[in-house]
Amino acid sequence: MNTLPTNNTPGRRKFISDTLKITGGLTLLSSPALSMAGNVLSPNKEFTIREIMDIILKEIPGAPFQQTVDTLKSGTPDQKVTGIITTMFPTVNVIKKAINLNANFIIAHEPSFYNHTDDTNWVPGNSVLKQKLELLQKNNIAIWRFHDYWHRHRPDGVGYGVLKKAGWLQYYKAGEPLVVIPPATLKNITQHLKSSLGIDHVRVIGDLSQQCSRIGLIPGAAGGQMQVSFVEKEKPDVLIVGEVHEWETAEYIRDAQSLGSKTALIVLGHAVSEEPGMEYLVEWLQPKLGGLKVTNIPSDSPFTWV
Amino acid sequence: MNTLPTNNTPGRRKFISDTLKITGGLTLLSSPALSMAGNVLSPNKEFTIREIMDIILKEIPGAPFQQTVDTLKSGTPDQKVTGIITTMFPTVNVIKKAINLNANFIIAHEPSFYNHTDDTNWVPGNSVLKQKLELLQKNNIAIWRFHDYWHRHRPDGVGYGVLKKAGWLQYYKAGEPLVVIPPATLKNITQHLKSSLGIDHVRVIGDLSQQCSRIGLIPGAAGGQMQVSFVEKEKPDVLIVGEVHEWETAEYIRDAQSLGSKTALIVLGHAVSEEPGMEYLVEWLQPKLGGLKVTNIPSDSPFTWV
Repeated sequence: MNTLPTNNTPGRRKFISDTLKITGGLTLLSSPALSMAGNVLSPNKEFTIREIMDIILKEIPGAPFQQTVDTLKSGTPDQKVTGIITTMFPTVNVIKKAINLNANFIIAHEPSFYNHTDDTNWVPGNSVLKQKLELLQKNNIAIWRFHDYWHRHRPDGVGYGVLKKAGWLQYYKAGEPLVVIPPATLKNITQHLKSSLGIDHVRVIGDLSQQCSRIGLIPGAAGGQMQVSFVEKEKPDVLIVGEVHEWETAEYIRDAQSLGSKTALIVLGHAVSEEPGMEYLVEWLQPKLGGLKVTNIPSDSPFTWV
Repeated sequence: MNTLPTNNTPGRRKFISDTLKITGGLTLLSSPALSMAGNVLSPNKEFTIREIMDIILKEIPGAPFQQTVDTLKSGTPDQKVTGIITTMFPTVNVIKKAINLNANFIIAHEPSFYNHTDDTNWVPGNSVLKQKLELLQKNNIAIWRFHDYWHRHRPDGVGYGVLKKAGWLQYYKAGEPLVVIPPATLKNITQHLKSSLGIDHVRVIGDLSQQCSRIGLIPGAAGGQMQVSFVEKEKPDVLIVGEVHEWETAEYIRDAQSLGSKTALIVLGHAVSEEPGMEYLVEWLQPKLGGLKVTNIPSDSPFTWV
């Protein structure tokens, strides 16, 4: 379980590389018990954004990081929080739902402005970004990205959430890079992931009738170099990812199979592959905040499949 | 028609940027007539790889380029050519078919070794790459990448091939960034692309019942920054691409629609979105080579959709 889903940028790859060095491998569960207790506070306590960030960061090894994309994308640290939304992508639709729920703090795993560093000048004069910022400012909605920190949590918050939702926690062993499940066909594993994670369509490379047991799970978009390196090293029966570069990982897997490899690939879709981690964040965070409501709004897949 | 499908690497982005500067826009057809005549040679003439590359490059503006990924990935320039295969990805399967056809020269649009520069040390010790190289060497198969040059040809070879196969050449106007077709629903356009280009499944973001006429066509994987910039500038009714980064272009399009934009997105898949350009290469190249056989072997989509 490496569970360091990333975008394929140098900074992001460096973060992966550093994390692998620090953890000495693909560790999901580094301690047998989860730190779920947290601070049980009075139900009526008010929090600022800064206070909530502090409560979270004190449970993240090595936090705060000197270099991280996990910054406030809108709002201010001193803002009083009326409610918290967790989600994968802080889409305009998610923001509107947050406004309806009177929740002014969105904790999002992925970028707000369509690029990894949320550079607002990535496409100069971006009219969509401008309208999104206006929507956020008009409604005093704060967004904090919670990517690097949630992956650095032990267990990795995204990996843990996905395994939990897939019903596979029982098969995970701390420190092991692969999850070994009872043998099942690639087709059955695919169907299980679709039904348990609530995904309508996935893309697969492999023989649907082949038996798989040794699972490599890398939700998100870790990039081809990381995904291919993982397969070369661990030789899983199936690699399960969120997103691939077709010309990198997909072509590598296709060639590998033509040369006799049995490693299959399941591509879940980026948003739906990591949303269980942001759903799990509710369960992890709510007990630390007393009565302040924490709600997951799934950002869902953007695609219609035709 | 910008038709500079690329991988999202700095070098590749620079190539796009330079090309756009040189051509002053997204020019597919820079001259009213196509240069199809070429050299009609004796049917029994033998060619080396170098001679074939020279025949091709003399029709590419500005060739040879100082910096390009279009290099020989295997084989040698002095090798005698027994037959030519054109394809998108020189997969192991395509190589095996080439061997069966006694064709020892593969002209491929995309990488051989799973990364844009075909760096064989991208993943050190890559066992799949090693076996692929052995297969190539054992059978004396040469691979030349033909990416930058084919896009720089006027008309852009990939864009021309796609428009031709889609039956849309009649709607293209030289120098215009968009192709304006008779209004049709997004659903009908999607179905037309699937049937005319031979694609089984596509992913769409948008209202399938909306009318579209102004088409932005960017086959391949041009990267989010280029795709988003194109939409911001040209506001097409629908953008048709090969591959997206979900966290960039897909999320931008989704937010844009939530804010009232009518620009839809169709994601065809990388290989199938550009293969018509390598199919068209046969028609373009064959008359220049007398009796030396040129054959397109489609690399096809790697995915099963479940």
